[in-house]
Amino acid sequence: MTTPADLYEQHRELLDQAIAAAGARDYWSAYPESPSKSVYGEDAAPAGERAFTALLGKQFPIEVPGATGTVSTERSPYGIELGVSYPRADPAALVAAARAATPGWRAAGPYGRAGVAAEILRRINARSFELAHAVQHTTGQAFVMAFQAGGPHAQDRGLEAVAYALAETTRVPVVSTWAKPQRGGEPLRLAKTSTVVGRGVGLVIGCNTFPTWNGYPGLFASLVTGNPVIVKPHPGAVLPLAITVQIAREVLTEAGLDPNVVTLAVEERGDGIAATLATHPDVRIVDFTGSSEFGNWLEANARQAVVYTEKSGLNTVVVDSTDDYKAMLRNLSFSLSLYSGQMCTTPQNFLVPAGGFDTDAGRRSPDEFAADLAAALDKLLGDPKRAAGTLGAIVNEGVLARIAEAGSAAGVVHPSTAVADEQFPNATIRTPVVARLDAADEKIYTREWFGPVSFVIATESTAHSLRVFTETVRQHGALTAAVYSTSPQVVEQAREAALDAGVHLAENLTGGVFVNQTAAFSDLHGTGANPAATASLTDAYFVTGRFFTVQSRHHVEAADA
Amino acid sequence: MTTPADLYEQHRELLDQAIAAAGARDYWSAYPESPSKSVYGEDAAPAGERAFTALLGKQFPIEVPGATGTVSTERSPYGIELGVSYPRADPAALVAAARAATPGWRAAGPYGRAGVAAEILRRINARSFELAHAVQHTTGQAFVMAFQAGGPHAQDRGLEAVAYALAETTRVPVVSTWAKPQRGGEPLRLAKTSTVVGRGVGLVIGCNTFPTWNGYPGLFASLVTGNPVIVKPHPGAVLPLAITVQIAREVLTEAGLDPNVVTLAVEERGDGIAATLATHPDVRIVDFTGSSEFGNWLEANARQAVVYTEKSGLNTVVVDSTDDYKAMLRNLSFSLSLYSGQMCTTPQNFLVPAGGFDTDAGRRSPDEFAADLAAALDKLLGDPKRAAGTLGAIVNEGVLARIAEAGSAAGVVHPSTAVADEQFPNATIRTPVVARLDAADEKIYTREWFGPVSFVIATESTAHSLRVFTETVRQHGALTAAVYSTSPQVVEQAREAALDAGVHLAENLTGGVFVNQTAAFSDLHGTGANPAATASLTDAYFVTGRFFTVQSRHHVEAADA
Repeated sequence: MTTPADLYEQHRELLDQAIAAAGARDYWSAYPESPSKSVYGEDAAPAGERAFTALLGKQFPIEVPGATGTVSTERSPYGIELGVSYPRADPAALVAAARAATPGWRAAGPYGRAGVAAEILRRINARSFELAHAVQHTTGQAFVMAFQAGGPHAQDRGLEAVAYALAETTRVPVVSTWAKPQRGGEPLRLAKTSTVVGRGVGLVIGCNTFPTWNGYPGLFASLVTGNPVIVKPHPGAVLPLAITVQIAREVLTEAGLDPNVVTLAVEERGDGIAATLATHPDVRIVDFTGSSEFGNWLEANARQAVVYTEKSGLNTVVVDSTDDYKAMLRNLSFSLSLYSGQMCTTPQNFLVPAGGFDTDAGRRSPDEFAADLAAALDKLLGDPKRAAGTLGAIVNEGVLARIAEAGSAAGVVHPSTAVADEQFPNATIRTPVVARLDAADEKIYTREWFGPVSFVIATESTAHSLRVFTETVRQHGALTAAVYSTSPQVVEQAREAALDAGVHLAENLTGGVFVNQTAAFSDLHGTGANPAATASLTDAYFVTGRFFTVQSRHHVEAADA
Repeated sequence: MTTPADLYEQHRELLDQAIAAAGARDYWSAYPESPSKSVYGEDAAPAGERAFTALLGKQFPIEVPGATGTVSTERSPYGIELGVSYPRADPAALVAAARAATPGWRAAGPYGRAGVAAEILRRINARSFELAHAVQHTTGQAFVMAFQAGGPHAQDRGLEAVAYALAETTRVPVVSTWAKPQRGGEPLRLAKTSTVVGRGVGLVIGCNTFPTWNGYPGLFASLVTGNPVIVKPHPGAVLPLAITVQIAREVLTEAGLDPNVVTLAVEERGDGIAATLATHPDVRIVDFTGSSEFGNWLEANARQAVVYTEKSGLNTVVVDSTDDYKAMLRNLSFSLSLYSGQMCTTPQNFLVPAGGFDTDAGRRSPDEFAADLAAALDKLLGDPKRAAGTLGAIVNEGVLARIAEAGSAAGVVHPSTAVADEQFPNATIRTPVVARLDAADEKIYTREWFGPVSFVIATESTAHSLRVFTETVRQHGALTAAVYSTSPQVVEQAREAALDAGVHLAENLTGGVFVNQTAAFSDLHGTGANPAATASLTDAYFVTGRFFTVQSRHHVEAADA
């Protein structure tokens, strides 16, 4: 048997590096993002595809305590038949199993738990190709993105959470000696022991678009801080998390631990087990990514738990001026197109002065900018094959409905069109909608239009843009913001506005970095400071609420101290 | 002008030491607890008394934005006339003033804010004698305790919060450079700036018994993490916090900052401004010490804020066996008597096996133990002068009512009696009540009897005691627990039970350390893991929810990086 302590020793160097990288916040990555043979081996890609194909049309091999019957709820945005079925969860049985697994997990200690977590991530990484197919056919991400964002990038975010959890749970020394000087006598001496105790059962509620990337931080943060975790995938994206839980249980079992430290909760659409689990008295931690509606419900109703939500918001771009208009348009059109704008970080609202703004290609009015952005989209997406690789497929009916609604309104400057895919003829692929609005149309642009829908909004001036930016983000939230300006003063004002709004800011991105992408160990994802999210991936706050430190103390003689 | 940066440089060594001590958690203290002339100077004691006396019967000199009229609500448990009056607060005006003070405070940065905080603590320390009189005559603590717990110990707890806040707000580097290698090209390079942004206006709701000790951690944690703070004292104990706020405003003004970073909110009894302030949309942090009733109300209703509460619970002692019965009785009787049991950490429930337990003085039944404890109390409190110095005075009518209620019930083995004080003939001084109960009397002992009321409860066995301990503390909370046993197995079981209950454990205390005392920089106060408190004084969790980190990023050339 490989004990948790053995696993810690095996992964110690990696964990040390991860903690150092999270502290430095410069570039670092543990899991290579390139799906190339030179990195993952000659057979990795075909073997991963075979493993994925072997799962289709079958019951997924996983043990779920107390499950009754099976469910099968996924459909591929690429139009292939999936037909994977899973045991249907019984929430009470899952919570009971999690509670029963708690004492052994507590006893494994922070280092043992981090060792187990690192081994889980190692095995997840080894199955990155299989996971990429699973992510592609549940989320609609194109394959390369599914590999990167669903694989190594998600694994990096998971390891980042492990690093923070390990650092924070080992900050208080396990043993300390207290010797208080006494006037005219021996010091008072106490030996003190500090033990990390998890808050209780953790629940991770997965989302449809980024099941692993958004699921891993909460999963690994709760695990390493001493909590069992119930993983409840979105009915549309079960497989990536089912594979994850399968791996976790395998590692736990091999380490001599109760596999019910991590369990899978799959439901029939409409069973509502997320709400049932989230309000169970023994569920003390909830991680959620998804709609503001359910996120706000969880915050209001899961009162017995600490609730970490990542919801939605109004990602905003303030356009003031640029000295590289072409590169700005190229950068922005890619941001709007990547995974069809189905990222919680995709820009929605472009605030542009009505009087126009200066560029190296001359002054541009809002109408001209909108037309130029539409042309940039057409250029980027002109070749269907390349377009499909950037856009991916539309994840669900909700996004399609928003595309239709936005496309039928007035002011559309770039209508959404269907794109054909060679490999998957039944794929649902669409280009983005861009529409022109004015600052007064706030009823439209203060709603979040999750999916490929953006607005070019004319404001009175850049100063007005910054006010609209701060006010709308303070009220409705945002995960990202960007500014384009050649004026250092305006950039400084935008920074202040972003601090007031509580949102991260990208300045003058014109190259190969996009506002909707964040890098683990360097960029924080979300701030907690605006309504779009209650926490940040990942900082100390994201992990410190998941555990407590309980002390015991007793007298010792000087010789023992 | 002494800038915040200057103040940081002045106090840098102290702050570095405090951060190191909080990490090591062995013995460390910044402010001497001895009220002796050799430490505080020849004239410190009389000067402090003169300063206190000069405040009596007058309007307290402090500016309060938007205040209308004055209020005077304090009475001394020692029976002297206080007659200090304060400006009556207007909650909306205070919140507006706090918001207006925020940008300047944010701009001071973590180090500048820590420098300001350390200077505030230095001046508080210099006024420790004046504060001791103020604490004595509002809380009823005897003078030496008022000096120590209300002065240096509270200052240590404040500095501990400063240390944690400074450490956590400086963990993410302000500037970092990210350079991601690209295949066959120059790395992608970004410069990133991280800025600490406070959560919003902080509110500290003080308590009647330990206004400074329990008030300083939240006050300084919120301040150093970038938030303005409104200090709302208990109507019975305004003066110690009024002096504190006066000092804070003085330091802020001298440092060129808006003094409204810290304001005082005094009310007429019944104004209910704590609830008004705690539910104001701009109040985003609430620190509260006091009754479970109002603490639970705050947790349920101050939904826009992060709420840190320290409420009440069932502090429990499991008695299994001892090899120093006399010392155990001496230790426990002092714990019950110190400040008349009016500490949130005083033991209430003693769980003793019905069949008796082994001691070095022979076997003792619950009845015998109760009688021996009563005798130990009589011995400790036999001399009225010494008794008064230990007991202090009864803080308010609520405690007197509970003494009367407990004393009139069946099973009393030590009735409460009045003690006369030489210096203050009108002081209200009482000895503790001890009553005998059985495990079945849970309706009585699962209530918290704040004040000098304790129960010796007969259980079936030590195993049963441990079950009762875990169950009652999990359900009703506790801030402290203790075990007496000569059996290493029982001590180990008690540790596990304490981990399950989520409460700190003191083992076999028989000397000069008492279960109701905790030392800053070493002992955590509260765990957050049971209903008695939502956080611990002080750990990282206590500070990380008070701020956010907001990043901005932009391209840089290799030369800039």
